[in-house]
Amino acid sequence: MQQNQDAGRTKVVLDAMGGDYAPAEPVKGAVDAVCAREDIEVILVGQEDVVRGELSNYSYPSGQITVVHAEEVIETAEPPVAAIRKKKQSSIVVGMNLVKRKEADAFVSAGSSGAVLVGGQGIVGRIRGIERPPLAPLIPTEKGVSLLIDCGANVDARPSHLVQFARMGSVYMEHVLGVKRPRVAIVNIGAEEEKGNALVKDTFPLLKECTDLNFVGSIEAREIPRGEADVIVCEAFVGNVILKLYEGLSATLIDAIKKGMTSTLKSKIGAALALPALKGTLKSFDATQYGGAPLLGLNGLVVKTHGSAKAVEITNSIFQCVTFKEQDINGRIRKNILSSAEQEGM
Amino acid sequence: MQQNQDAGRTKVVLDAMGGDYAPAEPVKGAVDAVCAREDIEVILVGQEDVVRGELSNYSYPSGQITVVHAEEVIETAEPPVAAIRKKKQSSIVVGMNLVKRKEADAFVSAGSSGAVLVGGQGIVGRIRGIERPPLAPLIPTEKGVSLLIDCGANVDARPSHLVQFARMGSVYMEHVLGVKRPRVAIVNIGAEEEKGNALVKDTFPLLKECTDLNFVGSIEAREIPRGEADVIVCEAFVGNVILKLYEGLSATLIDAIKKGMTSTLKSKIGAALALPALKGTLKSFDATQYGGAPLLGLNGLVVKTHGSAKAVEITNSIFQCVTFKEQDINGRIRKNILSSAEQEGM
Repeated sequence: MQQNQDAGRTKVVLDAMGGDYAPAEPVKGAVDAVCAREDIEVILVGQEDVVRGELSNYSYPSGQITVVHAEEVIETAEPPVAAIRKKKQSSIVVGMNLVKRKEADAFVSAGSSGAVLVGGQGIVGRIRGIERPPLAPLIPTEKGVSLLIDCGANVDARPSHLVQFARMGSVYMEHVLGVKRPRVAIVNIGAEEEKGNALVKDTFPLLKECTDLNFVGSIEAREIPRGEADVIVCEAFVGNVILKLYEGLSATLIDAIKKGMTSTLKSKIGAALALPALKGTLKSFDATQYGGAPLLGLNGLVVKTHGSAKAVEITNSIFQCVTFKEQDINGRIRKNILSSAEQEGM
Repeated sequence: MQQNQDAGRTKVVLDAMGGDYAPAEPVKGAVDAVCAREDIEVILVGQEDVVRGELSNYSYPSGQITVVHAEEVIETAEPPVAAIRKKKQSSIVVGMNLVKRKEADAFVSAGSSGAVLVGGQGIVGRIRGIERPPLAPLIPTEKGVSLLIDCGANVDARPSHLVQFARMGSVYMEHVLGVKRPRVAIVNIGAEEEKGNALVKDTFPLLKECTDLNFVGSIEAREIPRGEADVIVCEAFVGNVILKLYEGLSATLIDAIKKGMTSTLKSKIGAALALPALKGTLKSFDATQYGGAPLLGLNGLVVKTHGSAKAVEITNSIFQCVTFKEQDINGRIRKNILSSAEQEGM
């Protein structure tokens, strides 16, 4: 009985030392995840005494959480390539090696983005045929969420990379988010095909030729918050600018609105009455509630959550890993890349 | 007496046919500008009977507005290069030729961005030594406004272009906006010098060498709304994405907030009390109140306002032209480019 249960479980390695609120929030996120669902096993990687100390605050089904010791911690400010190479006993390196050896399905970290990206490529490794693994966060829109692909470290991308991003993003949105025939668009500075920089002009016709994609053309940045596409393809520099401006501008506007609403006595009373209803709206534009960003195209799943992730974002990221495994996203990506390579070879 | 007055006036050519609300709003904007200030003369360019018909709705000092006939109109959807070449009798071509022939100081249009950019370069022409004229809108921040340079059509820029953008932007912010030693930053995907794409990595050390600039390093998109820099340097594709996402996300959030605040009866009452105070906040994040975006580095001033510009934005853009002339921005840009060219030649 026990064995059967184990076999069906998704095994998620969680970096207990990563992020601004580690180890408290990652550990709480792990506990909440296993308390909510029986089909999850979390392997907490980090300094064992510290992690066990945190765990002792909770009661949880003990068979669903294990602790693996990792002596070192990679700090956010460390140069990532050197950190991954030198700190073999860090929670990121130890955790990713568990995924590499197929002892776990996924790795989740709120730690150094650079180290997660470098480790993902270097330790977990790319799926055969994938040129570059993109980081693909979900961003909130008026209609729900869209996948922004790529926001990672792959700057100065080539057109063939962007086509693979479109394919992987499409698989993810269809099978993890359940969007039928996801609309794929490329970020551009105008709606017409002849607009754009060299990269976009070269990529546009390639995307148009992809009969397996529901390519809807260019999307201007103005239309992104309106939810005009499900998969928003761009190279990493532009994606990073979009993601960070999204977070920064939402936070600044929400701060300004709160301040504006409490600037007079009359408006303070108004704010007290209106804020409960408003909170739902503001929450829907809070990127942290959608879990982490997957690094797609690897031999296993790697998920990067916000550095400021609290337990709820960690828990949601763990749930995301279950859907990813259940829907066999990597199997689908492999098949997709293989069949498109065959088509292009014809 | 009359002649002396004329000599001191700033002559602004206004495209009466450009924008979503032409000719009504441009004409109203012109009337408001000359009613407010004696030192302005507006030359309205467009179909004369239409423009005169609009003007007949107002009383204004008639010596400060003249009308110049232009039979043709360039539509927003027209390919700009062909439109500028073929429509010699359009309001944009006729108006820009007045600036070229030094019969006016500045040209303002809410019409086709592409045509304004192409006409600015092709008709008004670049200042000697300027490689590319950047479009530089002001964007609202928590602390006031920042200049985002370049948002134009100069995609795939080179490092030397970005250095010129930094210099021109710095002159503009110091002498039009009155910011002492404007902080210049380059848009990047991390704070460290070694981060970024090839363009940013190549430009960063060049900016560091510019002793005439107050270069403060990289700025991540997240920090832009916080007002962490006065001059935000980037190539046009990235600038366009930032500008349009700024507009789109602000609009979407403000819509969502209004909807959220009126979702229940209690919150409706709250909204009624809080909205007057809130409006000031929301207005400070409304890009349209800051006038248009100058196309810098030309032999004369060209200003592009929003396609949806109302009279107030047109009027503000006309005032902006006066400051531009009074502060001799083009003289300063010429001197700046000349002296930096000499320095580099040493």
